[in-house]
Amino acid sequence: MPALRKVVIFGVGLIGGSFALALRKAGAVGEVVGFGRSATTLESAKRLGILDRIGSHAAAEVGDADLVLLATPVAQMADVFARIAPHLGAQTLITDGGSTKGDVVAAARANLGDKLTRFVPAHPIAGAELSGPQAAVAELYAGKKVVLTPLPENAPEAVARVRQAWELCGAQVSELTPQQHDEVFAAVSHLPHLLSFALVHDIAQRDNREQLLSFAASGFRDFTRIAASSPEMWRDICMANREVLFDELGLYIQELESLHAALADADAEKLEEVFSEARKVRSAWTQQ
Amino acid sequence: MPALRKVVIFGVGLIGGSFALALRKAGAVGEVVGFGRSATTLESAKRLGILDRIGSHAAAEVGDADLVLLATPVAQMADVFARIAPHLGAQTLITDGGSTKGDVVAAARANLGDKLTRFVPAHPIAGAELSGPQAAVAELYAGKKVVLTPLPENAPEAVARVRQAWELCGAQVSELTPQQHDEVFAAVSHLPHLLSFALVHDIAQRDNREQLLSFAASGFRDFTRIAASSPEMWRDICMANREVLFDELGLYIQELESLHAALADADAEKLEEVFSEARKVRSAWTQQ
Repeated sequence: MPALRKVVIFGVGLIGGSFALALRKAGAVGEVVGFGRSATTLESAKRLGILDRIGSHAAAEVGDADLVLLATPVAQMADVFARIAPHLGAQTLITDGGSTKGDVVAAARANLGDKLTRFVPAHPIAGAELSGPQAAVAELYAGKKVVLTPLPENAPEAVARVRQAWELCGAQVSELTPQQHDEVFAAVSHLPHLLSFALVHDIAQRDNREQLLSFAASGFRDFTRIAASSPEMWRDICMANREVLFDELGLYIQELESLHAALADADAEKLEEVFSEARKVRSAWTQQ
Repeated sequence: MPALRKVVIFGVGLIGGSFALALRKAGAVGEVVGFGRSATTLESAKRLGILDRIGSHAAAEVGDADLVLLATPVAQMADVFARIAPHLGAQTLITDGGSTKGDVVAAARANLGDKLTRFVPAHPIAGAELSGPQAAVAELYAGKKVVLTPLPENAPEAVARVRQAWELCGAQVSELTPQQHDEVFAAVSHLPHLLSFALVHDIAQRDNREQLLSFAASGFRDFTRIAASSPEMWRDICMANREVLFDELGLYIQELESLHAALADADAEKLEEVFSEARKVRSAWTQQ
């Protein structure tokens, strides 16, 4: 018998689709049923072998599921929680694939009622530029980090079983509190995305932007790769984590103001000190 | 007879070494003589087939050279100009490989006297993380951009011959004024480097920096790749171009302050507008 007899997935794009394919490849799932807002996307997912069935009524499908994965945009999760809460079976666990956790946990608290104990939030650190079921692959999570942010209300066994599901997908699972999670990712993910979008936007405003871009080279290419990410997704992430991100951006502006002053003062020593410290830390990180 | 009978190179690292190897591969050079501050580096360059000879006295070598390339750090170029100026032959042209042009032109004006007419400044947009003669390859400039910043004093023929030398290396040569050059590269190269160093430095100051870095993923990796660049080289570039870079950084801080305000106001529309415009421009650039 597979580890999970039935899995129900809301949102069958890159994250949800790859979860299904990975569990299938591991022989860890009996049946996968999918829900989504687009019939075309659901049909694709079925054709691609992601889904056994396209679900019709969430109420009828979640009662006998072992696991429900919410892999929709984070802004839609409150609705899904509300739709499924009354119908969850006694054994049904819930996890998600959202990039922010404070807002997802708040939506769960507001909509899951006493089923909150079954929700073990997760953030898989994988995938980025691609989207849709066509982009889904069984190997997406192999060797990648998945951060669980368990709730005080979770039973240890619920956390262990959700961890196992992600590990069956090949992921390396670690745990943070939702607050820690959002602080960490504000610094190492949300802020860099904002800065990269901002640089390209800054250049895009110039009359000579074509000339500028014609001389941009590999440094610019790598620095701005993440500025090709989905504007809607990153708007939502920034809004969901906006308080922490506001503080992070404030610290970064201070850092830039100190460099701005160093340029004004022709303070070469200060510049070299900042650059050297950064290079040391960045080079050590690469080697991990 | 090769296009260039004798080339003298000051600084036989990645830029100077690759220039020599590319000209050799093209069958475009008779003899290459090298100067540098480190005997070990010069010996390596000779062993690697970059140099025919290690020069002893610059005065004795530049008189019969067709071309002199300055590929030292920019800060050393004033000295080299002063050493070679009295000894240049009637046919000897000079070019350089510096990443900034305003300062190099100023050093040339201060030290070359009436030989200024022979100096056609250049910036090859190639190479980055690697350095030293070991990193030099004949293909470094193949298909890469080289920007010439000719001086009003240059004879058209001098510009044409220096252009030809870089083209023989496989480069696509274009022209800007030194001032245009420094403005363009402040925006698309110097500023991104500063921002990348600043982000890593910002994170490096935190007590939980190990935790933060342990969750950093591919977006962070690409955004900060250039923060592994040479601190000394980037200190010099920032100092050399500090007035233009000061203005660029000021504009960027304004851009961030506007995003900071959007976060404070929960202005999702503003965020999406900035991100969308950036994505559009970045995606169009990629396809070039």
